[in-house]
Amino acid sequence: MKKVYFTVGPSQVYPTFNKHIQNATEDNVPSLSHRGKEFKKLFQDTTDNLKKLLNIPSNYQIFFVASALESMERIIQGCVQNYSFHLISGSFGRAWANYASQLGKKVTTVEVETTFDKEIADLEIPKKAEIICITQNDTSTGFWIPPEQIYQLKKNYPEKLIASDIVSSVPFVDIDYKYVDITFFSVQKGFGLPAGLAIIIVSPKTLQKTGTLVKKGVTVGSYHSLNNLSQKAQDFQTPETPNVLNIYLLNMVIKDMLRTGLDKIRKEIDLKAKLMYDFFDSHRIYQPFIKNPQFRSSTTLVIDVKGESEKVRDKLSKKGFLVGAGYGDNKDNQIRIANFPSHTIKNVHQMLKYV
Amino acid sequence: MKKVYFTVGPSQVYPTFNKHIQNATEDNVPSLSHRGKEFKKLFQDTTDNLKKLLNIPSNYQIFFVASALESMERIIQGCVQNYSFHLISGSFGRAWANYASQLGKKVTTVEVETTFDKEIADLEIPKKAEIICITQNDTSTGFWIPPEQIYQLKKNYPEKLIASDIVSSVPFVDIDYKYVDITFFSVQKGFGLPAGLAIIIVSPKTLQKTGTLVKKGVTVGSYHSLNNLSQKAQDFQTPETPNVLNIYLLNMVIKDMLRTGLDKIRKEIDLKAKLMYDFFDSHRIYQPFIKNPQFRSSTTLVIDVKGESEKVRDKLSKKGFLVGAGYGDNKDNQIRIANFPSHTIKNVHQMLKYV
Repeated sequence: MKKVYFTVGPSQVYPTFNKHIQNATEDNVPSLSHRGKEFKKLFQDTTDNLKKLLNIPSNYQIFFVASALESMERIIQGCVQNYSFHLISGSFGRAWANYASQLGKKVTTVEVETTFDKEIADLEIPKKAEIICITQNDTSTGFWIPPEQIYQLKKNYPEKLIASDIVSSVPFVDIDYKYVDITFFSVQKGFGLPAGLAIIIVSPKTLQKTGTLVKKGVTVGSYHSLNNLSQKAQDFQTPETPNVLNIYLLNMVIKDMLRTGLDKIRKEIDLKAKLMYDFFDSHRIYQPFIKNPQFRSSTTLVIDVKGESEKVRDKLSKKGFLVGAGYGDNKDNQIRIANFPSHTIKNVHQMLKYV
Repeated sequence: MKKVYFTVGPSQVYPTFNKHIQNATEDNVPSLSHRGKEFKKLFQDTTDNLKKLLNIPSNYQIFFVASALESMERIIQGCVQNYSFHLISGSFGRAWANYASQLGKKVTTVEVETTFDKEIADLEIPKKAEIICITQNDTSTGFWIPPEQIYQLKKNYPEKLIASDIVSSVPFVDIDYKYVDITFFSVQKGFGLPAGLAIIIVSPKTLQKTGTLVKKGVTVGSYHSLNNLSQKAQDFQTPETPNVLNIYLLNMVIKDMLRTGLDKIRKEIDLKAKLMYDFFDSHRIYQPFIKNPQFRSSTTLVIDVKGESEKVRDKLSKKGFLVGAGYGDNKDNQIRIANFPSHTIKNVHQMLKYV
């Protein structure tokens, strides 16, 4: 039976994935030297295409690392001397704050309950905080922070760096990068690729901060410090031998998306999200976990199924549709459904029939 | 034209690679959840098979990270409070010492010239050094340190941890793990796989040291600290979403090697190395860079081509054989030839004809 992975990541591969991986194998991409001309061209092409797709300013730099968790670590190391601030709306925001603490930083957090009904922009950020870390779309709760509220925070605290995890909302989320110094994501969600590659996008101000820390003698990491990544990226290289195959695949999928048009992809995600939320809002038992529509994620839907998570997942699985369990303690009470570019409207209709 | 990659990594893919990646795609490996039963089974199977192949003690733990450079960083973070010692025989050993220094450790080094003709085991290690870092086979110089000399160092300094980079010698190098606390390698060399995955193998003593540092309040890293990797590995998981596809491919190639028999693979590498060294030892102009046979690598041969690196590489490339340039400043004066399990004796004979 053909399976459709509605899991929140790793998820369904992009429709063109099989073709691209076959071409990669035929073209010896796994054997390419990461110091050769072909790789440099691939690096430049991929970052140029990503900038085009996501409307990233030309003076922002793009780095390749291995995972979103690594991104969290590198950002803290490269941007924080003493104090970081974390806006937490789920387990991934909490993890980020923990890592900052483990890396020896003084951490302040504000935990936004899933019933939150105020404006994110009204939050008070401690004066000492050098960075504001935000999980724009927390995959564990499906809590979505409207980008405009992040921009307002930046306007309120222009001197602080803003870092935003867009792991499970990219490329759906439309970010105005001039208000966000650092964003990062991994490729096994919205881009429908195998895991093992993540992208960090940084503003010039971010790298200035890293430079200041280096001058002060603060440890900013080693081979993957932001300054080392930046230096290598200027020559279209990475410090280590990177996941060349995944960079190639990412470039191919970005090019596919440029051809389709991101507007169209985003509209389809809107449509699929509406289909699913309408379905669960009018469901007798199963209900969306996030009540306030403005904080509901369109890309990772968390549904409270009242202890029937395993039952629902088994039922769907028998029909070839895989959805995720709730995260951590919510394993039994929730299901999580991805709504990525790889999921078709037809898939969604079919899947909902069997809930 | 079919190409054969004699480059030192990324290199020629393992002969069964295409079949395995096709199976992976058909079996939805890129979509597998890293928290599910199938992944846990894959983790356990891969580490069990690797232990069998390399004769790793059952009480050693195996971790998956993203690159050999990451391994260097995690080892320093997890094993060193203040002082590390580095035996340097090429650029990769030097990089490791630099990273330790960037991570705020006090670093002592001994640089072994390529003309070195004493015993490694006679080296004096500073009393304060908590770890002895050794590049068993430095890919930049082709300098091979006989494992027995590493064991002797361990006997001389039993209280210190010994960490050994076996990136470009595995699975050829036969390590007696009871004398080596930490080894690491990446998969794009001897295992003939795409880059983006590395393996760290650690002794119980290594994890005890990390535990001691944690108790003292020393920062040992965050999501990929040795203690966090260890805790997750006990449940056959990784802290982050790992490179599941590459773990799957590694398991398949290990199983192939178990079927062929590592003895046979090692004997073939010996034979191919002898073929190539005999050829260059009797060559009119081009000569092996390492003179002392006991320090000559069988897996990464560095040949001094007297400024003709580009000429030789172009000539070979036109016949479909790709060899590496010299590393860094030796780009023009040397070529580097890999001798991994993926390279057949026939390939070697053919390639040598065109040198």
